[in-house]
This record gives sequence, structure tokens and C-alpha cells, in this order.
Amino acid sequence: MKNIITLVFLFFGQILMAQDGYKLWLQYAEIKNPKLVEDYKNLNAQVQLDTTTATGKVILKELNLAFDGMLNHTVAKSSEQPTLLILKHAALPQSLKKEFKELEDLPEDAYKIQATRLDKREVIVISSTTETGLLYGTFAYLREMQRHKDLSQLEITDAPKIKKRLLNHWDNLDRTIERGYAGFSIWDWHLLPNLIKEEYIDYARANASIGINGTVLNNVNASAYILQDDYLQKVKALADAFRPYGIQVYLTARFSAPIEIGGLQTADPLNAEVQNWWNEKAKEIYTHIPDFGGFLVKANSEGQPGPNNYGRSHVDGANMLAEAVEPYNGIVMWRAFVYSDEKPEDRAKQAYSEFVPFDGKFKDNVLVQVKNGAIDFQPREPFHPLFGAMPETPLMMEFQITQEYLGGMSHLAFLPKLFEETLQADTYAKGAGSTVAQVVDGSLTNKKLTGMAGVSNIGNSRNWTGHPFAQANWYGFGRLAWNPELSAKTIAEEWLAQTFTPDPEFVKPMTSLLLDSREAVVNYMTPLGLHHIMAEGHHQGPGPWVKDLGREDWTSVYYHKADSLGIGFDRTSTGSGALAQYAPEIENAYKNIETTPQEYLLWFHHVPWDYKLDNGQTLWYNLARKYQDGVEEVEAMINTWQDMKPYVGEQVYEKTRMLLSIQLEEAQWWRDSCLLYFQQFSNKEMPEFIPEAKHTLDYYESIRDRYAPGIKPSWD
Amino acid sequence: MKNIITLVFLFFGQILMAQDGYKLWLQYAEIKNPKLVEDYKNLNAQVQLDTTTATGKVILKELNLAFDGMLNHTVAKSSEQPTLLILKHAALPQSLKKEFKELEDLPEDAYKIQATRLDKREVIVISSTTETGLLYGTFAYLREMQRHKDLSQLEITDAPKIKKRLLNHWDNLDRTIERGYAGFSIWDWHLLPNLIKEEYIDYARANASIGINGTVLNNVNASAYILQDDYLQKVKALADAFRPYGIQVYLTARFSAPIEIGGLQTADPLNAEVQNWWNEKAKEIYTHIPDFGGFLVKANSEGQPGPNNYGRSHVDGANMLAEAVEPYNGIVMWRAFVYSDEKPEDRAKQAYSEFVPFDGKFKDNVLVQVKNGAIDFQPREPFHPLFGAMPETPLMMEFQITQEYLGGMSHLAFLPKLFEETLQADTYAKGAGSTVAQVVDGSLTNKKLTGMAGVSNIGNSRNWTGHPFAQANWYGFGRLAWNPELSAKTIAEEWLAQTFTPDPEFVKPMTSLLLDSREAVVNYMTPLGLHHIMAEGHHQGPGPWVKDLGREDWTSVYYHKADSLGIGFDRTSTGSGALAQYAPEIENAYKNIETTPQEYLLWFHHVPWDYKLDNGQTLWYNLARKYQDGVEEVEAMINTWQDMKPYVGEQVYEKTRMLLSIQLEEAQWWRDSCLLYFQQFSNKEMPEFIPEAKHTLDYYESIRDRYAPGIKPSWD
Repeated sequence: MKNIITLVFLFFGQILMAQDGYKLWLQYAEIKNPKLVEDYKNLNAQVQLDTTTATGKVILKELNLAFDGMLNHTVAKSSEQPTLLILKHAALPQSLKKEFKELEDLPEDAYKIQATRLDKREVIVISSTTETGLLYGTFAYLREMQRHKDLSQLEITDAPKIKKRLLNHWDNLDRTIERGYAGFSIWDWHLLPNLIKEEYIDYARANASIGINGTVLNNVNASAYILQDDYLQKVKALADAFRPYGIQVYLTARFSAPIEIGGLQTADPLNAEVQNWWNEKAKEIYTHIPDFGGFLVKANSEGQPGPNNYGRSHVDGANMLAEAVEPYNGIVMWRAFVYSDEKPEDRAKQAYSEFVPFDGKFKDNVLVQVKNGAIDFQPREPFHPLFGAMPETPLMMEFQITQEYLGGMSHLAFLPKLFEETLQADTYAKGAGSTVAQVVDGSLTNKKLTGMAGVSNIGNSRNWTGHPFAQANWYGFGRLAWNPELSAKTIAEEWLAQTFTPDPEFVKPMTSLLLDSREAVVNYMTPLGLHHIMAEGHHQGPGPWVKDLGREDWTSVYYHKADSLGIGFDRTSTGSGALAQYAPEIENAYKNIETTPQEYLLWFHHVPWDYKLDNGQTLWYNLARKYQDGVEEVEAMINTWQDMKPYVGEQVYEKTRMLLSIQLEEAQWWRDSCLLYFQQFSNKEMPEFIPEAKHTLDYYESIRDRYAPGIKPSWD
Repeated sequence: MKNIITLVFLFFGQILMAQDGYKLWLQYAEIKNPKLVEDYKNLNAQVQLDTTTATGKVILKELNLAFDGMLNHTVAKSSEQPTLLILKHAALPQSLKKEFKELEDLPEDAYKIQATRLDKREVIVISSTTETGLLYGTFAYLREMQRHKDLSQLEITDAPKIKKRLLNHWDNLDRTIERGYAGFSIWDWHLLPNLIKEEYIDYARANASIGINGTVLNNVNASAYILQDDYLQKVKALADAFRPYGIQVYLTARFSAPIEIGGLQTADPLNAEVQNWWNEKAKEIYTHIPDFGGFLVKANSEGQPGPNNYGRSHVDGANMLAEAVEPYNGIVMWRAFVYSDEKPEDRAKQAYSEFVPFDGKFKDNVLVQVKNGAIDFQPREPFHPLFGAMPETPLMMEFQITQEYLGGMSHLAFLPKLFEETLQADTYAKGAGSTVAQVVDGSLTNKKLTGMAGVSNIGNSRNWTGHPFAQANWYGFGRLAWNPELSAKTIAEEWLAQTFTPDPEFVKPMTSLLLDSREAVVNYMTPLGLHHIMAEGHHQGPGPWVKDLGREDWTSVYYHKADSLGIGFDRTSTGSGALAQYAPEIENAYKNIETTPQEYLLWFHHVPWDYKLDNGQTLWYNLARKYQDGVEEVEAMINTWQDMKPYVGEQVYEKTRMLLSIQLEEAQWWRDSCLLYFQQFSNKEMPEFIPEAKHTLDYYESIRDRYAPGIKPSWD
């Protein structure tokens, strides 16, 4: 009987409550500080807003949800004297109008939040010239509350620096997601248009809360069938659901759709029947969805059809579609991610070579959408040389939020750090200080049409993104699309405080963890400018040995070029010459190994194994050191996370703990397999700080992940 | 300013709280009746149980969760005197042992719950001879509490009537699910074994709560790779997670695995190398998972490899695998769902023809797994003629919980009604009253190894099953596997009370709705014994016109045989003769149209259009009437549901409302398209109660659902 104990129950509801991540950064967690609760209740005692509009209703619903959560079911006092006014500028009481006059000169959807006085009472006013601006202001206000800020001195004026702030879903109509690591697509096409899931609304709320104002629903490797009437009904249902949140829907346009669903013999953009087909299709779409955003197109890239199939140019193709949507204020986003099927030119050069001659030739409603780097969303790439090289063309930034090359769903990598690095890079297009951010936000060359796209990491996982910390990348993308000058640090602090707790004992160490996390991934995957050495096809795990594929530039050996002399891709004038696509300031600095920043060393140079880096150690030593640093950084993340246990729910604590253990294993896998592989070429001893590898190189090379996520499913 | 109103907040936390369905029937909703709360608190003031075991810990966790939810965070009183004892029989206080002595004579995992007296105090005792029995007893006890039952007179003794109570997951390793309509597979293979998701635990809790004690993790159309070591590590992780809940894992065995992953030249079951490979594989599996359940095999069926490939029989194949797992108490479940590639025999006859000669030839640890009907999980089928025809062989029932043929995820169809109909059917195998249930539970022919399998409807949807009411089918399957004599009505009442509210104002009308729902589906899809007239491939929606496929018995026209004379499949001696596979009592009754039950009319007979049914109306009239009845029944469901709004959360109310509207549209689609199609043959006027069809037959025949769920994904 010794083992049979009598237990007394102690109920801790909150401990048992599931914190499953569904609420994202809109937790609206109960505030425990009684003084703060009192202050917040007083300031939010009574709100004045217009709920005759769809967006007004949405704002009221959000306030209810937020105050309910944060202020714990408290009934606000009734009074005819509002304490919180959420009103369009034109509807403000006369005495306040002047204080908010600046709104008239700010970009669309700007808002101002101001603690002020009205009829001698203290009030908070949120105002904008647009409904959507009011919603953005409300979310900004709630963000301050979630961060437990003092509201009594509040004064925030903010406006989006970029006009089109879009998610790109690489979601297929069968609900699989290319490079998706968080389950099935949230778009349940089969049950649309009749079933509007709660998830669609919460998706719109989350996006609106960070200023995202558009979403491309389907994959750039597109199915034409989404343009058929039955699917357009479904798209319309989503557009209707998203509209109150200021979110427009966009679709990808498969260039050959006139053939596949239109019954035409050609998709030649200069053919009148083809042009007419697209014009009629656009008309049909806009009949269903008057505020349809437009088309995103991947053409003549990786097997997708395009104008080149008919001897026409990207300009011909883009302008044809642009004409079709122009009458309705639609836009075309034409991707610059192309590389030739024939030319054996360095892939890093091809988009530039192809697109620079087109500068100034696109119609006004065309954005050329350019990936952050010239290869393909690697853990680190120099900024894409097109930024700064097409002054007459609005260039839209394409970031990848889903972690195709940064560990899928199992690695914690805070991507705003990567995004920030690209945005703050100097193109020198108009002299020093001509940052990529200024190209993208249009300020450098005075562009009105501006955009930023993020390839979504969202699926139907309970917490949306699989990894709890992958939510931060969605959040961070949205914030940077609104304001590309925001720092990764600010974003980390905001997200942590809202998602978990504003307690500085948590936010401070975790901000460091987040800010360091992406460099850890670079270190244990592709340090010193290495790139594209991952496993084939699914891109999960190391694969520096990958060779002999259909194309040379799909292999790893093509990119690292390791041999007995050294390692790295010579892109200077003695090599592919890709460096010459950058401004002279960059070219001059990077053309010599000595003056090339260490993080881009092997991107631009083939460097001897014995070459001494700044620290006096050889390249081989430094390569090993970086791999080891990466592993140790993950170990440090694990230690930090263990200390965070008191601040987070048990469920997210355990899940993150387990994921970090996977990340550590995979970091070691990268280190061990890459170093063993490269050692064959360097012929050097492994530095002593590198522990013995668990397996042989043969074993690592034999690993196959037949059912890896994010690729075309296999049933066999 | 008129439209700008001043609002006073009223906070209703519960209204805003998401009732997203994740908790299934384990809602543990707060009890509002103060008297009941008081009683429950007193009776559960203090519990005595052994938490040194994994299952004991699980019981304690469940009690915490349940009391927290139902009794609202109340701290139970401390005392050395337990009010609730959850103890194995051997550990009961001496004075109680006699009262629970019957447990020793009951099947494994039986439990008894008894309100009794101990040391002159009122106590509740839950006892069993096994740990798992204690868990089942605890869940049964919590079920009573969730139904707000008086506990003071509680006396429940219950034991499982069937030994192997299994879910069959048709989940592929790429996380798609064959015939799955609720998202991706919950098995996140890529992150196993390191990430144990909260969903795995909640899956195990839900299954244990209804007595399910095994799960086949992967598709019967199997990948051999799950038998490789890396996947076995993942399977082991799941087995470890499920073990405390009394749930064993099973795998499907691809018959050709010795070739595909073993490097052998053959998979011939009489080949010594092949036998040795399976013996070693079994040994390897049991090293990882000592309580591994065994193998499920689909062999020589629909393209799957099997012993016939080598001129061997199903007995040869099954017994080889049975020998491999026999040393470890493993079992083999060998599916009888076979139909020949060559023989043009009525498919309804083939499993019987193939398997009856094998009766008594299988090893003792083989179960032959038989679908409920001879075709394939149709909305209604007569029971499979194998039941009762293999007295020397234990037959395992296979039901399909996922609604492959009953509307996918969008139709509300309460399947326990279907299951009950099959289980209560009389085989006459040992005279009248020899029900299918008695065959399956072994009582008819004294079998010890018994089993029931349900093809899972679970996916990674937030509410597990997509349709909120599909949860009831998972629940009902489990309850019937435990006790095949349970009525569909009891199951409906239990599930409704636990999932929503025990309020009779809700439970009563909703029980009627559930009990009627499956017949509605039969009526608007396949009334009067029609079957297999659905769309090709994905099986969603009507397709009576389907013909000219790879095999005749994949078409619809093969099954309905409509012509100018009549409609239906003659399976009497003048037709395929399949009727002769049933007992003489059935054959004699069904051989004549007049004495054939109306619901099986066109299953067994080709009936003239003008044939008069019992109601004096023609077959054509009755066919139309049934289709219309089905539609009207859905309309009635919608009306009932509207009245239920006060009793359920807003989210589930709205979702179900929208799904019912889809169901109504699709019921009309079935009615209109099938009647238009059959009218071509009957050449009769549409009865006046049939409204004019929305579209032409040509239109209905042209509908293609290229991206329907549940089939092999297409990325194009």
C-alpha cells in the first residue's frame, strides 16, 4: 500500500489551460497588475465609433475580444462621455480636428493615436482618413496595451511606407503547399464558397494587425483552374470575408490559361484573341470582386509557361496582363526569378541580364517582383543586384517567410534579422546610403507603386506555422512591409511581449536569442558565404555532395566548387563576373579577397584552404570554427529557453524544447557531414574543437528523406 | 453624426470564447447547477489512487482536467479520508474486496464503479484488475458527471465484448490521407521521434475514453518504408506516448517489403529467405516496441502485392506473417476485401468465394478483416455474406468512419445507425437470432480473438474531423467496438450531452436528428437498394452515368443496370446468384421481389419501372419520392438546428449551419441529376412533388472536381 497515495487536488486552471498558439500575437492575456487594469479600464470606459461600416463592426469586435481578455470580463461604465474615440478625421469633434490635421498629408491608411483632452476630460483619440486606417490604429493601440505601456501620454503617428504589403501563398488547389511546413493549406477550396471558416477571419485579423493588405491565394507554380468560374466563386467568398480587414485578394495567373481553360490554340501575348481572353477574364473577375488586387506571374521559369514560348519578352507578357486589369486599378506582379534553360551562365547573373534591358518598358501598373538575393532564399545572400539597377521600374521585394532553406519547420530562425540585413544593404545606386529599403519603398527614385511580398509559412497547423517561433517571421514580415526601416530588435521585442509576456526578464534574453538565431543557422549550414549546398529536391538537411542532376546549377558542387586548392564561387572578373552587376563601390571592395566582407567570402571568391582570415587562422580552420559556432549557438538557445519556463505555457515550452533538440541534432548533422565532405578536398586535420562525427560521410550521403514535407506528395 | 454611436461594452466571456471542437466529447464544461456542483465536490473531495504507474499518472491528470473544467477551479478539501477510490482489485481495502469480486471473472479491462460505504463514509470506488481498466472506469465515471447524473447511487459494471478495438488510419507517409476529409495526417512523421505533439496525447485520451485500444498508423495501400529502422524509431515514439492510455500500435505490412526494403528477389511466402526476413523484421520491431500489436494487410487487392503473385494463397501469406509475430503475441489482420483482376464475377460475390474455402486454415493469431458489406462502404449495404459463413475463423468487422461514400466532410450522417443496422442483422448462421454482432464478438462460435476496426476520419483539422458532427462517428465507433449491442440512440444521447449540453431540450431533438440523418443520406444518394452510383475516383457527388472505366465493376452502370425495362442488379439465381451466399432463410425471403425488404430491393433485383411497391405506387414514383424525402429530411435538419442556437457555441453553430446548407445543395444535386439520368430509361414524367432541376443532365454530367479531397494530390 506504500505506493498508493492519497492526493489532494489543487487546481491551477491557468497551468492546465492550453496555450496552443492559435491566437498568435493577439493573445490579449489577462493583465495582473491591478493599477494598470484600473488605468486601462478608466481610459477605455466608453468608446465612440461608427459601427455602420463593416470595418467599424470589426473594430468593435476586436475591442471586445481584447478588453475581455486583458481586463478580465469587466463591464465598462456607461456614460455619454466617451473616453476612447475611434473616428475618421472628418468625423472628429471640431475641437480635435486641428490636432489631427497632419493625417490629410500622410499616405493612405495612416493613423494617429493621441492622448488629449476633450471637453476638459482626458481622452484617447484614434483617427485616420480611411476605415482601414482606423483598424490599423486600433491594432496599434492594442499593441501598446498588450505591452503594458502607459497610455496617458500616448502619441503615435504612423503611415505605411510601402503600398502593397502581400503574403504569397504557395498553396496548391489540392491543399498541399509547396515548401509548406505547417500542414495543409488553410484554404478549404472544396467547401468554399459556402463554408467560411473561423480561421479565415482570424487569418485576416492577424494580417490586419500588422498591416498586411493583400494576399495571393495560390502557388506561383500555378493551376489555370483557379481562373475558372467555379473557383472564382470561391475566391470571391474569401475576398468578401477579408474586405472588412482591408485585405485584397490576388491570384497567380498561369500564362497558358487561355489554352488550358480558354480553349485557344496559343497564349501568345501579342495575339488579339489571347489579349481578348485575358480582358474578358479580368472583367469576369472584377464582376465578382470589385477590389480584386491583380495577378502574380511566374513565367518562363522552372518549367512555367511564359511569353518566351512564343518568342515574346517578359515586357510583352506583363503588359498584356497589365492592360487587362488596368481599367479596374489592378496590378501585375511579374517575377524576376528566371534562369535560362539553355544558357550556362552563372545563375546569380541571369535575372539581372534578362531584366535590366527592360527597365522603363513596363506599364505603370506592373511591379517587377525580385527575390532578396540572386540565387534562392539562402540563409544568407548578398542583396539582389537588380535592386538599384532598374531606376525606371518599381521593384517589389520578395522575401521567403517559409523556411525552405532554413530548417523547414524544425529550426528556430528569426528572419526579420535576415530581412533587415537585405533592406539596409547599400546599393550605392545614387551614392552611399541608397539602401535596398529605399529602392523598395520608392523613395530613392520617387515611385508611387511600391510593394513587398512574403512567401507565407502558414498552414492548417493548430498554431498556424508549426514551429511556435515561426509566427515571429510572419509578424516580422508584416511589420517590415509596413515600415522597412523598423529594426529586427524592435520587432522581436514587440512580438515576444504580445505573444508571451511583456516581462523584461523574459523579453530581454529572448530578444537576444531571436536576434542571434539566424546567424546560428548560417553558421551551421552555410558559413562564410557558402550557399546552395542542401539536400536535393526537398532542401532539408545538408547535401554538399549533390551532383549530376538535370542541370548543373541545381547541384551543390556547382556552387561550392570545392577542390584541392580551395572552396568558393569566383564571381569576380576572373570568374563568372557576377560581381560587376553591383555598383562600382561594391565591386571595388569585393573584387579582392582581402576587402570582401567575411560573410560573403565564398560567395564571390574561390579561396585557398590555407588562406588566412582576419583572425590569423586559415580558411579551413575558420570554416570548421563557424560550423562549431553554429552548433554551440543552438546549445546556448536551449539553455536560455530552459530559463524561460516560468514565463510561458507548458505546452509551448515543451514543444519548443523538443524542437530545439531537433535543431541541435540537425545542426550537428550539418556540421559533421559538411566538414567530413569538405575535408576530402582540404586534406587537413579536423581542428580539435570539432567533436568526432557520429557517422561516416558515406552514411550521411546515403540519407534519403523520401517523404520530406513541402514537396510533391508521393503515395508509394 | 447620427451614425456614430456611443457604445457601452458588455462583456460576455463565454459568448466570445472559442468552442472550436478540439476537446471533442471531453469538454468538461462548467456545471452551472450549484446543488450538483456541491454534490460533485463532496463526492470528489479527495481521491485515492496509485500514481506510481504511467496509467495512474494519466488518470490523475484527467481528473484534474475534468474537475477543473466542470467544478470551476475549486480546491478540493484536504483529508486523509478518500471519497473517491480508484484502485485495482487487489489494492482495495479488505472490506470492499468482496463487493468487487465479480471483476475476477470478467474479461480483461472490465471495471466496476460503485457508490458504497467505507468506514461508515459514503465513497465511490472505481476498480478493475488492470491499470487500463481503471482508466476506462475513470472515463466512464467522468462520462456520468458530464451527463450530470446522480452519482450517489452509481453502480456500473462493464467489460469490453470485443478484444481488439482498432482505428485504421489510411494515412500516407507524406501526410496526405486516402479518403481523408479533415486535413493532413496528424502523424507528423518528419518531426518524429523527437517531437511528441500535444495532439498525440489528446488523440490517445479521446480513444481511451471510448475504449479504443489499438491503432493502425498507416494506409492499407502501404508504403514498405514504414518498416525501415528510421520509421520504426518514429513508430516507437508514438507507441511510448500511447502506452499509458492502453493503446497499442499496429502497422500495415506491404507484402512486397522484402523486395523493396529487404533487397530480396521475391516476396513468396513459402520462400525461406522471405520468411526469415519477416521473422527478423518482427524481432526488430518488438525490440523497439515490446507490445507492438501486429500487422494489417491488404494483399492482392486493387493492385497491392500479395501471395497470389507467387501462386500462393491468402492462407500462405497470412500464416507466414502470423508466425513472425506469434512469439510476441502479435496478431495479423488479413483483409478479405479482394476482387479478382480477371474473373468477371459479380464483385459482391468474390470475397466469399475466395475466403470461405480457407475457413479454419488460418493460424490462431490471424483475424480475417471483413468490411460491413460486400461492395464498399456504401450508404447502405446488406451485411457481408462472409459473416456467419466462416465459423472456424475469427472475423474482424471493418467499418468506415470516414465518409468516403456518405458526403465526405460536408454531410451530417450519424454512422452508428449504419453500424447498428449491420451488427443487428441476422445471419441465421446458427438459426434465427445469430446476429452479425455475435459473429464479431465471438459469442456465436466461441472465439477468443475478436476485433472491430474503424477507418479513421481524423485529420489535423482544428476539430479533428472537419465536420463537427463527424466526431460522433468516431465516438460511436469506439463505443460499439466496446459493446456492439449498444443502441445508436444511447450513443447519440451520450455524445450530444458530453459534446454540447445534457439539457434535454437539446439532447432530445438532436438525438432524433442524428438517428434520422443517415437515412436521409441513403434517400438522396442511393435509395431502395441502389449502390455505387457516385462520381468516379474521388467518390464525391452523383455519377450514375459513369461508364467505360478500366474495369466494368468500377462503373456505375454496372451496378444500377438501368434500362428501358427497369433498374437494379439481379443477384438472385436468375442473375449473379450472390444471394445464395446468404443463409437459406434470407435467400428464401429475398429471392422474390415481393418479400424483399424495400431497402434492399434494387440490390437484389432488376425491378420494372412500373412495379408497384407496398404503398401502391410504381417503382419510378417511389424512387423519386425517396430522393425528395432525402432532400426534405435535410431541410428538416436545418430547421431543427436553427432551434438549437441557444444551446451551442456560436462558432460550432455557424459552422454546422453552413455545412448543412452545403448538404442541402448537394442533396438537391443528387436528386436532380440522378432522377434526370434515370428518367432517360424510365421514360416517365417526373412526379409533381419533384421541383424543376436547376440544370440539365448534360451540365451535371460535365461537372469535374479535379481537386477533390481524399485522393492522390495533383499539382497541375
